[in-house]
Amino acid sequence: MSIKLCILGCHSATPRISSHPTSQYLEIKNHAFLIDCGEGTQVQLRKYKIKFSNIKHIFISHLHGDHVFGLIGLISTFRLLNRATEINVYGPKGIKKFIVTQLQLSESYTGYPIRFHELQSKESELVFEDKTVAVFTIPLKHRIYTNGFLFCEKLGERKLNIPEIQKYPEIEVCDYQKLKNGKDFKLRTGEKLPNKLLTTNPNRPLSYAFCSDTAYNEAIIPIIENCDLLYHESTFLNDKIDLAKITKHSTAEQAAIIAKKGKVKQLILGHYSSRYKSILDFKAEAQSVFPNTILSEEGKIIEIK
Amino acid sequence: MSIKLCILGCHSATPRISSHPTSQYLEIKNHAFLIDCGEGTQVQLRKYKIKFSNIKHIFISHLHGDHVFGLIGLISTFRLLNRATEINVYGPKGIKKFIVTQLQLSESYTGYPIRFHELQSKESELVFEDKTVAVFTIPLKHRIYTNGFLFCEKLGERKLNIPEIQKYPEIEVCDYQKLKNGKDFKLRTGEKLPNKLLTTNPNRPLSYAFCSDTAYNEAIIPIIENCDLLYHESTFLNDKIDLAKITKHSTAEQAAIIAKKGKVKQLILGHYSSRYKSILDFKAEAQSVFPNTILSEEGKIIEIK
Repeated sequence: MSIKLCILGCHSATPRISSHPTSQYLEIKNHAFLIDCGEGTQVQLRKYKIKFSNIKHIFISHLHGDHVFGLIGLISTFRLLNRATEINVYGPKGIKKFIVTQLQLSESYTGYPIRFHELQSKESELVFEDKTVAVFTIPLKHRIYTNGFLFCEKLGERKLNIPEIQKYPEIEVCDYQKLKNGKDFKLRTGEKLPNKLLTTNPNRPLSYAFCSDTAYNEAIIPIIENCDLLYHESTFLNDKIDLAKITKHSTAEQAAIIAKKGKVKQLILGHYSSRYKSILDFKAEAQSVFPNTILSEEGKIIEIK
Repeated sequence: MSIKLCILGCHSATPRISSHPTSQYLEIKNHAFLIDCGEGTQVQLRKYKIKFSNIKHIFISHLHGDHVFGLIGLISTFRLLNRATEINVYGPKGIKKFIVTQLQLSESYTGYPIRFHELQSKESELVFEDKTVAVFTIPLKHRIYTNGFLFCEKLGERKLNIPEIQKYPEIEVCDYQKLKNGKDFKLRTGEKLPNKLLTTNPNRPLSYAFCSDTAYNEAIIPIIENCDLLYHESTFLNDKIDLAKITKHSTAEQAAIIAKKGKVKQLILGHYSSRYKSILDFKAEAQSVFPNTILSEEGKIIEIK
């Protein structure tokens, strides 16, 4: 069990020659999710050799350009690649009009279904769920309606304790699934073997919290608490804490305070303002509060096990 | 007098790691024009060190993504760069809704005026004019309403023939502008010196015709006739002439036939389909009909004198 995150873009505001706006590619269980889609994301996907057809769900935090201007291009390229599989887009109310207006005016069709899941709740809500994974929104505080997303593995099946099982020849392979599901086993003698004797606990489910653009906001702590990896934007350093407040962004230190208060396992920073020459300063500032901090860098792959 | 053209992107359909969709930067007289604006154009402008503030007029041929998806990002970046100068956007009817819908939904403002000049005529029309330059549409045949653009220098002032002028001491510097404007000079004796004696012809005005996506279309010949440089798309080679017909594109040979029939000075090809491994094949095919053919390549600068 692992979660794999690839950073496609981690800078704020505009695409430049060697820095791209926000986009991330997340593999969790059997899913491949795209998170945010700034201009040029489709080129970054090519650069890091990610198959376009893997992506079936796209999560958009908000409708500012550096998080969404690449979506229409990606949707168009899906068509040129003869995509037939449905794509699901989760984003703020308005995202459907944002995309469909462009498709209509360019007299384009997609050739595959697009399902828009428009969000407008101010409370955290479940937006995607299947047997293995659940995704919840993380309402953020920004200049425009914005959500982060919490990606959670679900608790898996119990694991078979084979040496113990083999002590009872009447337990057959066809009984294994019931044991995985947590059932006790009744011997012919009438004796009941408790499930805990025959199985061990499943792996601890992992979780990843993506918090794009947000002012310092302790309200998110109950949602992101104890997650394995927290991406929290840090547009500024503390030298610009006033500008962070005005623009509803965070500093590296503020991201670290949230990580510490939320008792997360690891913090990853990003959405750096281009005014700073070195992103190492973001790491240093955050680590003074929360040592287990790493930096988003384009092409970096983070694996959580 | 010269026209300078910089190719920012010259490939069809989608942006890739090292090939970009259509965009060109044109310097003519004292103007800097941007022509088409596929995704990533703002990054190409940075790459080729073109000042964003130079651009005051943007011409969009049609609303297919590979010609327009980069416009919203560029418009947003203008704001981030604190632009105050008006920008003029010339494009098909609908382009205003295309851009304004995105600005509204992202709750963004531009901070500078954008004037949209929406086009819907099926006849060539004058869309921009000042003392030095005129720009006309070139109605094209594509799957959607599409215009090329003809950029024309205007005839300049007549040039002073200084050695001849100096033979007449009573002609003073303050008389020069009248001579440049074509006026004759009357000596105190009553004798009239014809303007042609005192001046020489102005430089021949130059012109550039940009024909983006179009099926083979002889109707454009009277408009592009005798121009100094014709950009004519060549999405395909003749091996795909049927596909060109269906998709309303041209082959390299068809572009060359238009160039030949239009008696243009030089032809430049572009909008290459990614199915071809080498763009040199486009040049070879066109040169068999029209020898003075060159290829669009990203970053290439073509100067017409």
